Order: sequence, then C-alpha cells, then structure tokens
Amino acid sequence: MEILITNDDGIYAEGIYALAKALGKAGNVTVVAPDTQRSAVGHAITIADPLRVTPAKHNGKFFGYSASGTPADCVKLGIKSIMKKSPDLVLSGINLGGNLGYNILYSGTVSGATEGALLGIPSIAISLDTFTKPDFSAAAAFAVKLSGLMKKRSLPPGTLLNVNLPNIAASKIKGVRVTNQSRTSFNDWFDKRTDPHGNTYYWMTGDFKTKDADRDSDVNALKAGYISVTPIQFDLTDYKFISELQNWDIKR
Amino acid sequence: MEILITNDDGIYAEGIYALAKALGKAGNVTVVAPDTQRSAVGHAITIADPLRVTPAKHNGKFFGYSASGTPADCVKLGIKSIMKKSPDLVLSGINLGGNLGYNILYSGTVSGATEGALLGIPSIAISLDTFTKPDFSAAAAFAVKLSGLMKKRSLPPGTLLNVNLPNIAASKIKGVRVTNQSRTSFNDWFDKRTDPHGNTYYWMTGDFKTKDADRDSDVNALKAGYISVTPIQFDLTDYKFISELQNWDIKR
Repeated sequence: MEILITNDDGIYAEGIYALAKALGKAGNVTVVAPDTQRSAVGHAITIADPLRVTPAKHNGKFFGYSASGTPADCVKLGIKSIMKKSPDLVLSGINLGGNLGYNILYSGTVSGATEGALLGIPSIAISLDTFTKPDFSAAAAFAVKLSGLMKKRSLPPGTLLNVNLPNIAASKIKGVRVTNQSRTSFNDWFDKRTDPHGNTYYWMTGDFKTKDADRDSDVNALKAGYISVTPIQFDLTDYKFISELQNWDIKR
Repeated sequence: MEILITNDDGIYAEGIYALAKALGKAGNVTVVAPDTQRSAVGHAITIADPLRVTPAKHNGKFFGYSASGTPADCVKLGIKSIMKKSPDLVLSGINLGGNLGYNILYSGTVSGATEGALLGIPSIAISLDTFTKPDFSAAAAFAVKLSGLMKKRSLPPGTLLNVNLPNIAASKIKGVRVTNQSRTSFNDWFDKRTDPHGNTYYWMTGDFKTKDADRDSDVNALKAGYISVTPIQFDLTDYKFISELQNWDIKR
C-alpha cells in the first residue's frame, strides 16, 4: 500500500512522526508536509508564488519532503510531482487540537485530506483533541486500523473521514462512534491593542463553544470518551432549500 | 439596511468599487477588505499574527477599511470590531473570475460570505466569470436586486448564496437559474523549474474542466448565458454514507 502523509502543524511536529512511524508497518509511506506551522489556513492553495521542496530529516535520517506551501499544496505536490505511483491512501495529521463542528472549515488538517479525496484517493484527517501533553499512541494505532479497513471497504467518490480522538489513554477510550459534524464553532472576538509606535492592531482570540445537544455529533462523542469518525463531503449545495429559492422572485 | 462588503481581490480592486457604489443606494455600506490580493486563500483565518486595519481611499475620499488579513478575517473584524451595529447583509465580491464547482473550496470570495453566514448574517458571494475585460455593471445591479429580496425573504440559518455571472452585456443575459454546485474542479499540475542558483521550484498551474452534463449546475447555467445562484451550506456530513460506515468493522 502506497501512503501519502501530510499535516498542518508542519513537518517537524510530533504528531506527523507518530503517524508516519505507525503507518510505516502498513505500507510504503511518503511524507510531504508544510515547512512550518500552517494551522487555520483552510483550503488555501498557493498560486501566486512558486513552491520549494526540500528533504527533511528526523533523528538524522531522511523523513520526508518539506514544502513551502499549505497542506492542500503538499497533497497536490505529493500526488502529481513527488510520488512515482499514485497513493492508495492520504492521511493528514495527527493534528494537535481537535477539528470539530464548523471549525473544520478553517482546518488545514482537514483540507489536506480533502485535497486527497478531490483527487480520487481514499483520505483520512486525524486529530487529537488537546493542545497540551499529547499522547499520540491511540490515534496512531487507530489510523493503522482504519487504513486496513480502507483496503477492504470503499468510500463514495468525494467522501473522506474526519477522525478525532480524546487525549486519554488507549485503555480508557470507550469505543468508536460514527458521528455528524456538530453545529458548534469558535466564539471569537478581537483584542484591540496599541503598539509601541502608537498604532492599533488586533489579535483574534476566542473559545470553542462545545454546547451541542445532539448525541450523535463529533463534539459529544469526544466528551463521552469515544473516538469520533465523521464522513464528510464537499458538494455544498443546500438541496433542501432549492425549491424555496425557486419561489423567490429571483428570475428576470 | 446596514451592509458589510468584503472581497478577496483586495480593497483596491475594481469589482469591490462597483459593488460598494451600487449598494450605496440600497443601504449604509461599510467596506472591510484585504490590503492585497488574497485569492485562493480558502477559509483561512489569521491566528498567529496580529491584524492591522487602516483607512483606504478611492478617488480621494474615504472608501473603507483595509486589513492585513483574509476575507474571513475582514468579516469577523467588520462585525465584531468595526461596525457599530451588526450588518443586515454581508456581500463578498465582485470577484474577478468565477467561483464554480469544487473550486469554491479554494475561494476567498466565498469564504468571506461563509463567515457572514456562520455569524448569523444573510450573506452573498458574487463573482464574474472572466479574468479579462470585466464589465461589473450587470453583477452590481443583480446584487442590488438580491439585497432587496433578502429584506423580504429569509435564508435558512447557515445557508448563503453563491452567485456567478457570465461576462456579457446585461441585455444579453438570458435570465437567472437556481443551480447546484457542479462536480467540476481544476485539473492542475506543476511546472518544475530551476532557479538561477540551481535550485528546483514548482509553479502550480492548470485549467478548469467545465465538463458537466448536469443541466442544473452552476457551470452549465453560465455556459447557457444565465446568472447562476447556488444556495450553499457548511454541514459537510455525508449523511447518506453514515449507515454504511456503521457497518464497517470500525468499532472496538
């Protein structure tokens, strides 16, 4: 199995090492990842600048390709220019921080896997719901398990899996839930400050509102100690609203 | 009516002038837009850097607020820090270039309007399907018409309108179609080059595959000379696939 791995925390992040190491037992791994942190880049791609690709080492040995672009750029580069054979699987992660609810729109991790799905490759985004003291072992083991399943089962074209794990010991995880994307998002605001030269600037800040009464949501699965697996797709059409919109006086 | 306008071509682009001028007759317009071109940024937001906001002029008069961020940043800033009252409407555009099919994932224009919808404001993204010799008049007039409709009708929470116009004279436009997002995307590849110092770099390039047999798609509406209006939403869950995924041997 040929496996392409990317992330948005950058090629020197612990999460991508854990993922690449675990998957190395399941197949032939190629890592193409951003040269620095690219969190919250959404599905950005680089069209106005050239991309640089350089080899990156880990523990003194070649680890993968470091690219001056976004996760989506890395997946395109991996599939179209770097790998000799098209991958059987694209994995993005393991992200430091959950990718839940509407926040997946801002997620570079999810966009790496989305790019894989758009290019017709079975793809998984995987995130650990913590920013401190991460233990990537359960997430890495689950990624290996899912990769095995992907060989036997198939996703619909354009659909990918968004996986999130609570940051607890593998033995304490209660199980796996197939979930829907919750209707929660960051509640953000701006901290207005003045720099030493008298100029105003703003810092975006906020908290994640995890209120969600829906038992089957990604947020609630994590709260209850389960791994969350949400199948997601990118036909954004609101089909339910089309007939009502037809009745607006919209046509000339 | 309080109206917030942004775009991804930057605050000095012709399309945003045309839109702000036209909407100025329909309401009280506040412009908050990126200080430079931010095309293909997707739904990126700026969390690791502070944001600067400076006044921008057009024809010697104050026009709006120029921000050192993405379209999504601008909408957040506009609503949460700059405007005194929350807007009744967010408009993003008029973009130079169509935002159709899967390409809307990469679109800064669409992400500006998406941010508005996520914050609970009726929102419209509007794009002109050309990169050369744009005539923004029909698009600006249609934006005014839609804004009027928005006062009378309401969108479901989280749903926004993605509008695209062919670059033809208003008199030649055949009408308006309510459409779905087509399953077309860029067919891109990388042009591998060597710089004067002997280092390799890559340019992303490609073409837009507009093949789509679906009469009701955004792409086909434009081809046939119609304005395309697609209602879009951001619950990405693939609900149709959930029951099948439950049957995978995914649980422990």
